[in-house]
Amino acid sequence: MGAENYKQIFDKAMRFVRPKRRPHVEGCIAEAIRLAGFWGCDAERAAVAALLHDVTKAEGPEGQLKLMKKYDIIPRTVDIAAFGPLHAITGAAVARDLFGADPEVESAIRWHTTGRAGMSLFEKIIYLADYIEPTRDFEGVEQVRDLAYKNLDLAMFTALKNTIAEICSSSKHLSPETVEAYNYFLCLIKGHEK
Amino acid sequence: MGAENYKQIFDKAMRFVRPKRRPHVEGCIAEAIRLAGFWGCDAERAAVAALLHDVTKAEGPEGQLKLMKKYDIIPRTVDIAAFGPLHAITGAAVARDLFGADPEVESAIRWHTTGRAGMSLFEKIIYLADYIEPTRDFEGVEQVRDLAYKNLDLAMFTALKNTIAEICSSSKHLSPETVEAYNYFLCLIKGHEK
Repeated sequence: MGAENYKQIFDKAMRFVRPKRRPHVEGCIAEAIRLAGFWGCDAERAAVAALLHDVTKAEGPEGQLKLMKKYDIIPRTVDIAAFGPLHAITGAAVARDLFGADPEVESAIRWHTTGRAGMSLFEKIIYLADYIEPTRDFEGVEQVRDLAYKNLDLAMFTALKNTIAEICSSSKHLSPETVEAYNYFLCLIKGHEK
Repeated sequence: MGAENYKQIFDKAMRFVRPKRRPHVEGCIAEAIRLAGFWGCDAERAAVAALLHDVTKAEGPEGQLKLMKKYDIIPRTVDIAAFGPLHAITGAAVARDLFGADPEVESAIRWHTTGRAGMSLFEKIIYLADYIEPTRDFEGVEQVRDLAYKNLDLAMFTALKNTIAEICSSSKHLSPETVEAYNYFLCLIKGHEK
């Protein structure tokens, strides 16, 4: 993809993004490019995934369900209750359908909110870029920022652990995939300790 | 079951229990009887379930796997990794096989560690008796002690929420059933709020 083509996608994607969310998306693109460069992934594709990761975030519950209907996705009760995963599911479909995202970009968008067991390197980079991008400011982010350039699996585990703690302390619904991812990365880091 | 019969089961069960765990089991029996009386369950069966809930707790990983083999139970990776659920699974089988526990008692023992979505009244009582019995002393127990005699579903939700937070902060494996139970009770209490 040339710079011109990226500029076109950028302008089109930004029309879907609310002004207040724009600094987050731009921060995510910058972080995804840095992480991709550091860990040896295609930086341009990481930029596209980061650009599109929240493409349907502006939609409320009704808009999300309309998009799921359009893309023949049957929503699960837990995803509707948790709400957050819906924009990841519909975002992946919109990225593919309206922006021609390839399967790797689509999958990174699909799992950027919950994570999942067995995440690819590219999925981890987009998940973490979203979590640590420069405008993020919450408890524990500094530790994950540091780990993201040292040990990706430990960074993922720490981010998931923080996320589960935050979800529970706010009495929100917890996605099974988040817990599967937490257990998966726990196995990985315990395995490395041995 | 007569008092004599209960005495026999009690003496037999206590031979499986390590001396240091005895006050917990006795506290759990007392609490289960109180809760059963309060919420209108059979107090004698609650006493038997509480008496037997930790009947295989003294077994280490090897003993647990031996018991699972004996009872044709195929252990899941997540249960082996979490370890805690194993004594609930084998305890239920031993309660049935060696103590003639009925299905309700067996099921309460099976789910006393993780909980599960759709718990019965009897299962909730045994879960909470184990959580709040008088020798328990950890952060949040007082709140659940109070709720257990006011709102069983809110008590369950609070106990599960505390448990998930504790498991994550100690970097232990999280059972999917615990999370399903957490989401289930969250739905129930949110439903009541409406």
